[in-house]
Amino acid sequence: MVILALSFFLVLIPFLISQTVNKKSLKISKAFVQEALTSEWGYNFLKELSALGPRLSGSENSLKALFWVKSEIEKMGFSKVWLQPTLVDHWKRGDIEKAEVILPDGKTKTLHICALGTSVGTNKKWLSGEIIEVKNFTKLKKLNDEVKGKIVFFNRPMEKELVDTFRAYGRAVNQRTAGASEAAKYGAIAVIVRSVTTKYDNNPHTGLVSYKKGIKKIPAVAIGLKDADFLSKTLKKFPKLKVRLKLNCKNLPLAKSYNLIAEIKGREKPEEVIVLGGHFDSWDLGDGAVDDGSGCVQSLEVLHLFKKLNIRPKRTIRVIFYMNEEFGSKNSGAYTYGKYAKKSKEIHIAAIESDRGGAVPRGFTLNTKDELIKQKVISWLPYLKIALIDWIKPGGSGADVSKIKGTKAQFGYVPDVQRYFGYHHSANDRFSAIHPREFELGSAAMAILTYLISENGL
Amino acid sequence: MVILALSFFLVLIPFLISQTVNKKSLKISKAFVQEALTSEWGYNFLKELSALGPRLSGSENSLKALFWVKSEIEKMGFSKVWLQPTLVDHWKRGDIEKAEVILPDGKTKTLHICALGTSVGTNKKWLSGEIIEVKNFTKLKKLNDEVKGKIVFFNRPMEKELVDTFRAYGRAVNQRTAGASEAAKYGAIAVIVRSVTTKYDNNPHTGLVSYKKGIKKIPAVAIGLKDADFLSKTLKKFPKLKVRLKLNCKNLPLAKSYNLIAEIKGREKPEEVIVLGGHFDSWDLGDGAVDDGSGCVQSLEVLHLFKKLNIRPKRTIRVIFYMNEEFGSKNSGAYTYGKYAKKSKEIHIAAIESDRGGAVPRGFTLNTKDELIKQKVISWLPYLKIALIDWIKPGGSGADVSKIKGTKAQFGYVPDVQRYFGYHHSANDRFSAIHPREFELGSAAMAILTYLISENGL
Repeated sequence: MVILALSFFLVLIPFLISQTVNKKSLKISKAFVQEALTSEWGYNFLKELSALGPRLSGSENSLKALFWVKSEIEKMGFSKVWLQPTLVDHWKRGDIEKAEVILPDGKTKTLHICALGTSVGTNKKWLSGEIIEVKNFTKLKKLNDEVKGKIVFFNRPMEKELVDTFRAYGRAVNQRTAGASEAAKYGAIAVIVRSVTTKYDNNPHTGLVSYKKGIKKIPAVAIGLKDADFLSKTLKKFPKLKVRLKLNCKNLPLAKSYNLIAEIKGREKPEEVIVLGGHFDSWDLGDGAVDDGSGCVQSLEVLHLFKKLNIRPKRTIRVIFYMNEEFGSKNSGAYTYGKYAKKSKEIHIAAIESDRGGAVPRGFTLNTKDELIKQKVISWLPYLKIALIDWIKPGGSGADVSKIKGTKAQFGYVPDVQRYFGYHHSANDRFSAIHPREFELGSAAMAILTYLISENGL
Repeated sequence: MVILALSFFLVLIPFLISQTVNKKSLKISKAFVQEALTSEWGYNFLKELSALGPRLSGSENSLKALFWVKSEIEKMGFSKVWLQPTLVDHWKRGDIEKAEVILPDGKTKTLHICALGTSVGTNKKWLSGEIIEVKNFTKLKKLNDEVKGKIVFFNRPMEKELVDTFRAYGRAVNQRTAGASEAAKYGAIAVIVRSVTTKYDNNPHTGLVSYKKGIKKIPAVAIGLKDADFLSKTLKKFPKLKVRLKLNCKNLPLAKSYNLIAEIKGREKPEEVIVLGGHFDSWDLGDGAVDDGSGCVQSLEVLHLFKKLNIRPKRTIRVIFYMNEEFGSKNSGAYTYGKYAKKSKEIHIAAIESDRGGAVPRGFTLNTKDELIKQKVISWLPYLKIALIDWIKPGGSGADVSKIKGTKAQFGYVPDVQRYFGYHHSANDRFSAIHPREFELGSAAMAILTYLISENGL
């Protein structure tokens, strides 16, 4: 990975050397950084947004927050602000969410759990069964008949030794997404999944459970790490340990919702569009400041910075707050916008996504097949470095912008990610996790990249 | 600054390209990172150290903590552990530390202040006077006679727009270090200094006040940012506003103390020494986990990692916990070690300092005049990047290692510094500010650099 990144860089060095720094671009890049750091406009906006509470897709609160943002944006004097209707998934956590381990002496101990998104409930009744712990699907397959009638406890931790926490997440998350259907195949009656997190506390981390067609949908919950370890330890002593669950979460019909879109029209090439954004929906346990209030507000702050510094971009800059990313389904704002982009006569030249949290800038991933574009973007590092962007690496940009086809290049903003999964999908995802300077440098980094694409093309 | 850093890099590119990656070094670098991230040995050590409380130079607690560390290190099986005696400054905060603003209606309001290090007290009596606010020494000079008999309120904030918080600190800190003597020149009776911090709360940030010889020593305190703003605002309404101070801090004779030193002898060139370390003393308002418990424990963790992975280095690796950095005087462990190094027959080939906090790695500063060493160190980036070191830049290494003369190169470990001054010298400097993964990646980065110097020389 490291070596790959370095060689990517080395290929481009001859071009890099030949570059001279454009004074105007340098001046504007510095101005973005200074304005962001001194005004903290985005940080304060995110504070207000977060105070409105979580924005679970399909929920009343997600629309309340969206309309509040819309009314705020309408005061900002952009060229256009509009809502793009989209149908979204609608799942309700309900007000009953309990898990208890029944100890051999008959006493019970409450476990810190939460239902996973789209999980079915237990019909308001206790569902109890013996616990069986597994680390992966291979082990599950071997157990086969032993699983029948039991509650499967998936307890594979994120690998701490991986520096890239997104990679560690990717290698642990299938327990959560696919575990329920895998276990149901062998007759399991429910699953409890070790929270996919790097933070050792007892807050459960939710996230999507994806049921496979044709397999019975069984209740699926996440458990806090301390209780996961307690459960594992207790199971070693008492292999016949039972747990009972009670959940009244439920899936409802698709709900009406919207993407929120705002733009500044380009002064010379208004038909060429640079899209930037994040997803507006969040999970419901925290306030969604990190995932992905950050990405939304940083994108919006880019528009604010252009406006504040009175810079009319050459090309159109469009910000999209995508609705319904977390349920990972086709019923998402990203698909809706993707379809719009395909039909539209506009040319979407580039798309930038911010959905890795609000920590300090490190780099941008770049997804393009064009070698010349790579060279061009790398040559912009002297400007981007002002906002602490140290590298451009090849890589995927993000789930939402990937639905826009035909762009010349797509970018993912990459802040530092060491803390990210400690907040992700849990009650820890709160505005207090955001540091104003780190957050604002991210907005500035995105503004610089947007400006350079707008002025120079790709 | 940015351009400079880039050109520094560009010069070295031909060499970089010609480099091939050494498989053994790569394997060991990865092993350092994995071991650090999974065991969190240093993080847990720092937790225990921080729980012992602050380590103000000359204080009983600083020695208690030092002896605890020594006894722990002695269990670790290094080649040598020893104390190097050094005389250190000794200042006591005392138990009376009060400031009140006297409002025009006769009511008083308590201000959040703390005495600055080495400040004289007020003889346990209230010292009161009119407040006069200034932003800098030029303004002070202009006021001249107006200052007489008054308390000068230095209220110049750190410049938020500067990305490099150390630069912003450097541009604001002279109010704290030199303000008292500057104000005393014009007959001021005391100074209140806006805390030099990036965090907007009401915790005062202490630090050294440096009295000039021949000028009257007047009491000097720092004030929390919220109260600084309150004071400034109230002064605009009531220009004759009075404040009173009561402090019983005092300076005592130099105290006996020690540097703590531990080392693993080199297997081939034991006489060639690579020094790494941080300063053990801290200010007394927090627990000093950030400044500079981090740097000390990261350095120690380098030795631990060599030991744990059973790597006997080619050259000697020596860790120094320097005593008495914060008072910035010649009575410091750094000078004592510097003198020792000069007399010693050993060859100090390199020195690494970690004194910029425990946040996520970004780079190393490199201080050398030798162009070939620069090229060599840059060529190590493929290994260092595994621990998130993205760059090597020319720059000062740190106050402590700078006293070691004749090294081929000196390095400063640079973590991200956006949060640093929010903790620095205040009650915010606590173990809770440390993130295990960020901290451990720093230890690993230092271990990789140390290993490469040890095996390849400079």
